[in-house]
Amino acid sequence: MSVTYPLGFVASGVASGIKPSRRKDMALVATSDWHAAAAAATFTQNLAAAAPVVVSRQNIAASRGRAAAVLLTSGNANAATGSEGEAAARRAVEALASVAGVHPSEVLICSTGLIGIPWPVERALEGIPRAHGELAGGVEAGVGAAEAMMTTDTFAKTAVYEIGGVRFGGIAKGAAMIAPNMATMLAVVTTDAKASPDQLARALGRAVDASFNRITIDGCTSTNDTVVLMASGASHEELSDEELARGVQAVCDSLAAQIVFDAEGSTKLIRVTCTGAASEDDALAVARKVAESSLVKCSFFGKDPYWGRVVSEVGTAGVDLDISQVSVSYGGVTVYSRLEELDFDREEVGRVMDAREIDLVVGLGEGAASATIITADLTPAYIAENMRTS
Amino acid sequence: MSVTYPLGFVASGVASGIKPSRRKDMALVATSDWHAAAAAATFTQNLAAAAPVVVSRQNIAASRGRAAAVLLTSGNANAATGSEGEAAARRAVEALASVAGVHPSEVLICSTGLIGIPWPVERALEGIPRAHGELAGGVEAGVGAAEAMMTTDTFAKTAVYEIGGVRFGGIAKGAAMIAPNMATMLAVVTTDAKASPDQLARALGRAVDASFNRITIDGCTSTNDTVVLMASGASHEELSDEELARGVQAVCDSLAAQIVFDAEGSTKLIRVTCTGAASEDDALAVARKVAESSLVKCSFFGKDPYWGRVVSEVGTAGVDLDISQVSVSYGGVTVYSRLEELDFDREEVGRVMDAREIDLVVGLGEGAASATIITADLTPAYIAENMRTS
Repeated sequence: MSVTYPLGFVASGVASGIKPSRRKDMALVATSDWHAAAAAATFTQNLAAAAPVVVSRQNIAASRGRAAAVLLTSGNANAATGSEGEAAARRAVEALASVAGVHPSEVLICSTGLIGIPWPVERALEGIPRAHGELAGGVEAGVGAAEAMMTTDTFAKTAVYEIGGVRFGGIAKGAAMIAPNMATMLAVVTTDAKASPDQLARALGRAVDASFNRITIDGCTSTNDTVVLMASGASHEELSDEELARGVQAVCDSLAAQIVFDAEGSTKLIRVTCTGAASEDDALAVARKVAESSLVKCSFFGKDPYWGRVVSEVGTAGVDLDISQVSVSYGGVTVYSRLEELDFDREEVGRVMDAREIDLVVGLGEGAASATIITADLTPAYIAENMRTS
Repeated sequence: MSVTYPLGFVASGVASGIKPSRRKDMALVATSDWHAAAAAATFTQNLAAAAPVVVSRQNIAASRGRAAAVLLTSGNANAATGSEGEAAARRAVEALASVAGVHPSEVLICSTGLIGIPWPVERALEGIPRAHGELAGGVEAGVGAAEAMMTTDTFAKTAVYEIGGVRFGGIAKGAAMIAPNMATMLAVVTTDAKASPDQLARALGRAVDASFNRITIDGCTSTNDTVVLMASGASHEELSDEELARGVQAVCDSLAAQIVFDAEGSTKLIRVTCTGAASEDDALAVARKVAESSLVKCSFFGKDPYWGRVVSEVGTAGVDLDISQVSVSYGGVTVYSRLEELDFDREEVGRVMDAREIDLVVGLGEGAASATIITADLTPAYIAENMRTS
């Protein structure tokens, strides 16, 4: 189940020919009746934002937070493609709007794939009527859309959630900061709640900040990252801001963790939690510095609980702290505290390091705030996937 | 030629047994007559500074910028070793001061190697009289000291320079941000100029900022980084601030480039230059963001001129710029300008990417400032060297 779990949404996934392999490369998520639903979106902060980001930003502003559909293509990012790239994205949006009988500003577009190569708009134009014709409700349609977004992803990423009669669903592909040669983090989240665009924007902002903005693979920010939230209103239920944010975040949390789990070439998912910080900002800064360290990531690949390297990263996180109060634990086993290595159970920590998912906790002893960043290990396979574009 | 090229310095390198392999692991650089020369030092900004950094900081402050000798050990960083580590470093300093008949505050100490393992002070104490006994002038003594600092370095790093009758020399080992499991960036620079501690501190600050602070391998900052500058005065020549800084920087530039050339597992040295920036800070921020990108570094390993990834990194450097004015060139061949890929000579760029050293230039079109950061490629061998401590 995914974007089609909430009432009032249909989806499809087809092969338009953008990918030379003829695998699925075009996904479509729309309201069942093509009405312009309340919507919100967050986009990459990269100044070199790709053409589809430029077009979608303009469209959601022009429609005042309304969207009937999101078109997503994979295989070519349409990034660093200049004014021709923008014109191509606009042509695709207009073609879909024309087929569906809606205003172009009610259509959003996302793309993912290689940067700097002209986007094959003619192929996209061939695929759009088919993607429109295959729109359907039900499990398979949502998964089909998730599959059509994939680049180097090894599995389709989907999630659902429910709060008091209101359904939430989502699809995503990895991944900003994960598979950046061929990829970007794209996600579409749907709900059948009745909500205003402003309420959706608040909920999405909170949810993205606490989920997609707390995963990191290599610290790189894509030109194409986009997360879209649409509310069909088909449940006729309204939720409080709090509940709406909780539902959106539950879906985003699941999709974000799946993205890291499927990070290119990775063998481990690592939850780096900083506890005992004076503020959440401090906790985030420390967790992020540790999670983004190539050295820490190498040592997880090697299953080596090298706490000394973790402490060294804590010391350069730019946070005012007393290094003598720092502690480090792996899977609940504290191995270092108050400037000394403890006499810990090496077999037990060995088992922790062998697992597919590992919890690393850094305690600061400064306060009560905490935060978690999820990351993956750095492996030779990551290099192999990113060393050449072709 | 190296630290013993300037008049008034002796050096040695011995095996004390800190390294279980019994390779050389203790270097000593001293004034020929053990007088306390004018000196300056810069240390890591890591809050988890190692014991030798703590002790050396105290000593050079207590001696008001005077030092007779620098003791350097390799194989164990004496970092994250608590108060026992500090006491051990102090015992080594006192032992050398006692043998040489100087005040302990006139001795500096540096260590490099694994973090978090008790420093074998008894072995160091056995080595110190031998290192003292073998002190000598001449080429071999300086190179011997450089060899004794090595951890995963594949060659000893030395440099010399001369300005108007004043000599400069240096030794270094890689490398902060390079071989961090087994390493740290340590350097000793000597000159026979007559200079005050204040003048040396100014010259060293400028030189380090423009050399060692402009190389990056993986963005990690060691717990042990130290650069020491000593002036014997044996030439009886005084230099202007400008000349002194130029001499020190020439040595530091050479040592820094050697460190990157010898970066763990690397196959390429890449000079990332940002030109046309509104300010030097902007130029540095852009050059550093590109140079620290795992993806850019992977593509250099793959010899792939993937300018799209470079532009994407420029867009996230946190610098206010017009992305449509950005250009990218490899080895002098511009491949991208004004949002478009140019029709460049692919064979020529292929030859550029095949070379051991590559110049990547990012033009911003915003102003006249520029800056260079030197980095290495990211390779499977880097991961192999850093995935386990043992």
